[in-house]
Amino acid sequence: MSARTVKLAVIPGDGIGPEVVAEGLKVLSVVAPRHGLTLDTTEYELGAKRWHATGETLPDSVEEELRRHEAIFLGAVGDPTVPSGVLERGLLLRLRFNFSHYVNLRPVRLYPGVTTPLAGVAPEDVDMLVVREGTEGPYAGMGGVLRRGTPGEIATQDSVNTRFGVERVVRYAFAKAAERPRRKLTLVHKDNVLTYAGELWQRVVREVGAEYPQVEVDYLHVDAATMFFVTQPRRFDVVVTDNLFGDIITDLGAAVAGGIGLAASGNINPEADFPSMFEPVHGSAPDIAGQSKADPTATVLSAALMLDHLGYGDAAAQVERAVAEDLQARAKDGGTRSTVQIGDDIAQRVAEQG
Amino acid sequence: MSARTVKLAVIPGDGIGPEVVAEGLKVLSVVAPRHGLTLDTTEYELGAKRWHATGETLPDSVEEELRRHEAIFLGAVGDPTVPSGVLERGLLLRLRFNFSHYVNLRPVRLYPGVTTPLAGVAPEDVDMLVVREGTEGPYAGMGGVLRRGTPGEIATQDSVNTRFGVERVVRYAFAKAAERPRRKLTLVHKDNVLTYAGELWQRVVREVGAEYPQVEVDYLHVDAATMFFVTQPRRFDVVVTDNLFGDIITDLGAAVAGGIGLAASGNINPEADFPSMFEPVHGSAPDIAGQSKADPTATVLSAALMLDHLGYGDAAAQVERAVAEDLQARAKDGGTRSTVQIGDDIAQRVAEQG
Ligand SMILES: CC(C)[C@H](C(=O)O)[C@@H](O)C(=O)O
Ligand SMILES: CC(C)[C@H](C(=O)O)[C@@H](O)C(=O)O
Repeated sequence: MSARTVKLAVIPGDGIGPEVVAEGLKVLSVVAPRHGLTLDTTEYELGAKRWHATGETLPDSVEEELRRHEAIFLGAVGDPTVPSGVLERGLLLRLRFNFSHYVNLRPVRLYPGVTTPLAGVAPEDVDMLVVREGTEGPYAGMGGVLRRGTPGEIATQDSVNTRFGVERVVRYAFAKAAERPRRKLTLVHKDNVLTYAGELWQRVVREVGAEYPQVEVDYLHVDAATMFFVTQPRRFDVVVTDNLFGDIITDLGAAVAGGIGLAASGNINPEADFPSMFEPVHGSAPDIAGQSKADPTATVLSAALMLDHLGYGDAAAQVERAVAEDLQARAKDGGTRSTVQIGDDIAQRVAEQG
Repeated sequence: MSARTVKLAVIPGDGIGPEVVAEGLKVLSVVAPRHGLTLDTTEYELGAKRWHATGETLPDSVEEELRRHEAIFLGAVGDPTVPSGVLERGLLLRLRFNFSHYVNLRPVRLYPGVTTPLAGVAPEDVDMLVVREGTEGPYAGMGGVLRRGTPGEIATQDSVNTRFGVERVVRYAFAKAAERPRRKLTLVHKDNVLTYAGELWQRVVREVGAEYPQVEVDYLHVDAATMFFVTQPRRFDVVVTDNLFGDIITDLGAAVAGGIGLAASGNINPEADFPSMFEPVHGSAPDIAGQSKADPTATVLSAALMLDHLGYGDAAAQVERAVAEDLQARAKDGGTRSTVQIGDDIAQRVAEQG
């Protein structure tokens, strides 16, 4: 990749967000120049503090500024002092939706040396790529409340699934599956109950699948899928699923792969019409904030996903290698390092790779 | 309990359904007379065969007959030759909805001797009671399809949550939690995204909880809950949740507690305005049907839930004890018995208890 400057918006956010983002940026600052990449970063203070101070979650003008970046690097948003949903819907989901992050990419890999809660499961048994739809489904925010606070109250929540939205993410998932050695794609849904949405997903997978005869297609109900995640994780290669099911199974996947401290994600707009956004799967963890206790690995791996998205696959591989080495070493040292120390160690491993 | 005759409708269903139901009835036939209970059973052929022969899933006249029973004992329905959803919506969910089975009761217990996929987890770590709402939420079947088969297609799926429906199941869950030694209730939802429904569930739990100051109340997002199911199952005592989240976490719970072959459920109408229905959590498993390979334990434990619901708590405890003994013995014998053999052995253990 030739020398290039990328405008990167950084949203440290709340709780442990700023701590883990600092380590992600540290690793990026070591790896990027080695690959001719200059990151021109601008930090945005968004999250609980801003909301408390101004009542704003994401002012239009800030959204407009963010839009003029190539990528967004986010820590975590959310705090118990902010009503549930305010920052999630007003900031995080607003960015995912308005920037057409229709691919929420979440690798689930068990790195050697990492402890999984599952008995008898080895690293080679857990290597999946979950492609979660990111812009519709039950996350659309549609629905409402009638007769609130009365015995006749009704609250609805509507899952919206469009041919347009389902097809684009299914296409992405097939393309990914075709590139991987196992070439298997599993659709996860609940088509025996959610018959309208389920039939659309099934039909789109069938139709797009016809263009990928080399990809083996499987289907699992979401309930069965959670069971197989813990009893037969080997069963999965690429998984494609809707926004809510994807949220659920990727947290479970994170647990299986050694915990939320290691789970990376990319909110991707493959056409690059908008900046894609990279963030750890975990939240702001206010209980351990400010103590340098958080594991920055998920954020560092999210930075690797970002490098890959920006076209710096070699740089991404270098970061992943450094993380893999660090995790192996950790299995021996007992894991008592601080957030900063882990970031330093990974950065140094990258530097040593040259 | 005094001598009584209970009219029991039996729906063996498809696949392994008839095989496991036979063993459930076998155990019931041993335990019931010992407690003065006579079961007057009528079998109903409903499921794939009937649908293929007549196109019917549940004729109104049969529903009317079922309604005149005190309880329903069901094996499993579903077959790959029937389009997904036809039997689920047309038979199973229709019964749950029309008979107001608003409590879908699913104990998640790890019996001694049973292998869990989790490393380092002991029986005392897994003892929860999931109270899944059974008559609304995303299972309501509401929604539709617009412009099917065109690029502009939209499929919606609406979750319906009523104050009436949420409150009655939350009340049931609190009453159960108050009876248990740990007195803890965890609401599982996703209120930071599904804000309309989530706020209703939270508010109802808060209000009803005020009447149960002795019950500790916790809340978890469904994604986090799946993680804690595998990393800290101890965290859970009674769990109350909506229909879809309950479907997902109870399959995961079944996996954690040693597999779907052991997971029992009751679809309960606590007021007994309608017959309650008892069934294993597993499906019809057509791949192993007719080979006497299925584990009837889940069905036998569902029969125990039924005995308890009918007021025969001692009989239920007897069946559970026999199952617990059988599972312990199984840990030694390697587990190669047929469906019939397991049923025989459990029945014999009940008989030996006197
Ligand atoms: C914070 C929340 C809105 C978010 C989601 O539900 O998508 C999180 O759980 C995630 O998985 O990124
Ligand atoms: C068969 C299906 C409709 C059913 C459900 O989703 O409730 C099953 O998975 C269950 O958990 O009893």
